Formats: sequence, structure tokens, C-alpha cells
Amino acid sequence: METRSERAETTLAAIVDTALAMAADGGLDSLSIGEVAKRLGLSKSGVFSRVGSREQLQLAVILEYDRRFQQAVFLPAMREPRGLPRLDAIMRRWLARATGTDRALSCIYTAGAFEYDDREGAVRDQLLDGVMRLRAALRRSVLQGIEAGHLRADLDVEQFVFEMDALYAGLMRDARFLRETGMHERGVKAWERMLASARSPTCPA
Amino acid sequence: METRSERAETTLAAIVDTALAMAADGGLDSLSIGEVAKRLGLSKSGVFSRVGSREQLQLAVILEYDRRFQQAVFLPAMREPRGLPRLDAIMRRWLARATGTDRALSCIYTAGAFEYDDREGAVRDQLLDGVMRLRAALRRSVLQGIEAGHLRADLDVEQFVFEMDALYAGLMRDARFLRETGMHERGVKAWERMLASARSPTCPA
Repeated sequence: METRSERAETTLAAIVDTALAMAADGGLDSLSIGEVAKRLGLSKSGVFSRVGSREQLQLAVILEYDRRFQQAVFLPAMREPRGLPRLDAIMRRWLARATGTDRALSCIYTAGAFEYDDREGAVRDQLLDGVMRLRAALRRSVLQGIEAGHLRADLDVEQFVFEMDALYAGLMRDARFLRETGMHERGVKAWERMLASARSPTCPA
Repeated sequence: METRSERAETTLAAIVDTALAMAADGGLDSLSIGEVAKRLGLSKSGVFSRVGSREQLQLAVILEYDRRFQQAVFLPAMREPRGLPRLDAIMRRWLARATGTDRALSCIYTAGAFEYDDREGAVRDQLLDGVMRLRAALRRSVLQGIEAGHLRADLDVEQFVFEMDALYAGLMRDARFLRETGMHERGVKAWERMLASARSPTCPA
């Protein structure tokens, strides 16, 4: 039997899960406590008492998105050897999310960046924190690729990480807004060209 | 002296101009007839009678954005010779807009793509139309580069145009959300690498 605090945790998880689906669909700014309550058959005050405020719910959504993203992209890639194999696994898993048909995978970081570029506050700060951690993880993997001798020693790491993220943003846009098909292949092709130009001459394909 | 219909046109232009500034700041969905009226010192019904509806105003904003974009990016580039010089001029002018400090240059097409990816209707259709025309213009310039012998004959044109646009989306994001400095140089460097890999062997830099 669930204890009272276990039930409370289950409810909170359901609230965040429902809010994440809403944010993936309509953006973080579309979140409404009333709508979340309605979808879950809870009272609005019941949702409020659990999340504190709309902004707190937005922050919880970003954290949960980040957790799922780590779990889907970075954790499985950690099973690959350090250097190029791991970097390649990260990028391929990441690109696959952009073109998947699951709308719940809409990227809160990419869409949120355009939603919150001109706004200040806790939501922007939390988004920025997540994007910076993602960049740091990419940078680490690229540096490991150089250390392992897989990538050129003179590679401009910041430039390369920027281009990885730009490719992802462009792919998201084409797959989800233009609704182009064949985008997965296009993303992979661009990535392979990037990798080819970054590969160490002593580490052929 | 202005005639009555000239005054009406002036007012409509001011309405669209004010709405465009609002959309560049907060997104197309942030547009409110009441707020536009307030900023211009007009009555709400006066604005309504001129634009018809909020959606009509959103469509007018997209058209005006497109006109300014063409004027700032494509028209000056048409003075350059067909082929690589013109393509290069387009891309450099475009990239410069992404990293400019003028918030009014926020890209309605890039931000709008993430705002309207999951929504149907006239606003999405108008955005899509603008993005497709932009892509068509880029494609034309790349094809002219191939015809002129400046770019490789076996270049994957669709792939190249996709990567141009992805670079722009990533640059917008980094410059405006991360507020990174030095992004103009980063964008130009990525573009030069793209161009180098696309250049015809008989057309050295």
C-alpha cells in the first residue's frame, strides 16, 4: 500500500509529466496550472499546493526534460569507448531525437531559447544552465576525442561544438516546422562531413 | 497636405511597424491589438477597423518582415556577379543580421518556426511560405554558383541549403539566447569552411 507521502510524490510526478507534454507542444509559456489540473482531474488548488507557482512548475519541467535528455542521449553513449566512438554515439542519438515522430521529444532547449531570448528571470536562467551543461558535455567529449588522437589536435573546439548545436537546431526546425521527410539522413550526412573535416589524419575512417 | 486615404495608409504602416517590433521581441503570438493601439495612442476599435483581426495583423507583420529581409539581404547582393560572389554576399549579410545588436532584427522566421511547429492555420502557412521562398532563393544562388563553375558540379544542393539555414538558426540562438560575443566571427568561420568544401577545384579561393 502506498503511504501518503508516496501518493504525493506520484501526483507530483504526474503533474510534471503532464506539464512537460504541454510545454513540448506549445512552449514553456503555454503552461497553465488550470489546464494541468483539468487534464489530471485534480483541483487547481491541489496542483498549486504541490508545485508552489506556475514558475516553479516551469522550472520543474526543465529539470525533468534535462533528466530525460541525459538518460536518452548521454548515458547510453557512455558505454562506448572514450573519444570518437562516444562522441559519435552522442551526436547520432541526439540527431535521432530531432527527427523522431514523438512530439513529446520537441526540444525544450531549442524552442525555449527563442521563447526566452529577450526575457529575464528564473526560467531563462534555468534554460541557460541546461544549455550550458549540454555544451560542456559536448565540449568534454570533443576534447576526449582529441586526447585519444581521434580528432585533429588543432581543432577549434568551441567552433566545433557550436556547429554541432547549430546542426541540431536546424534539423529540429526542418523536421518539425517544415515537416520535411528524409531529415534524419540529411542530419547524419552533415555530421559525417563535420567529422571528416575534424578527424585526425592518423585516424582514418 | 495628406489626403484622407494617405493618412489611412500612414496609420496602417505605423500599426504594422509597431506590431513587427512587438513580434520581434515576444513572438508573433504576443501580438495584441490592444497593446498596439496603446503604443500608438489609437483606439482599439480604430486599429481593428484598419487590420480586420489579430490574425490579419500577424499576417501583415510576416509580409512586412519578409519585405525588409529581402531589402536588407537579397537586393544588395544582386549587385554582385552571379555565382559565388552573389551567394557569398547573401550569406554574409544574412549572418550579420543574426548577430547584430538591433533586437528588431530578431528573426521572425526562425523564432516563428518553433512557435508554430505544432499549430495549424493561416499564420503557420504564411510563415512556411516565407521560409520556402527564402530557401528557393538560396537554392537558386547555389545553382548559379554551380553553373558558373564556382561550386562543385556534384554538390548536394538541398543538403548545402539546409546547412546554410541550420548555421543561421544556430547563430541566432547563440547570439540572442546565450548572448555570446564573437558570434559573428564564428558564423563566418563556419560558412567559410562550408564554402571551401563546396568550391570547385578549378575555382580556388
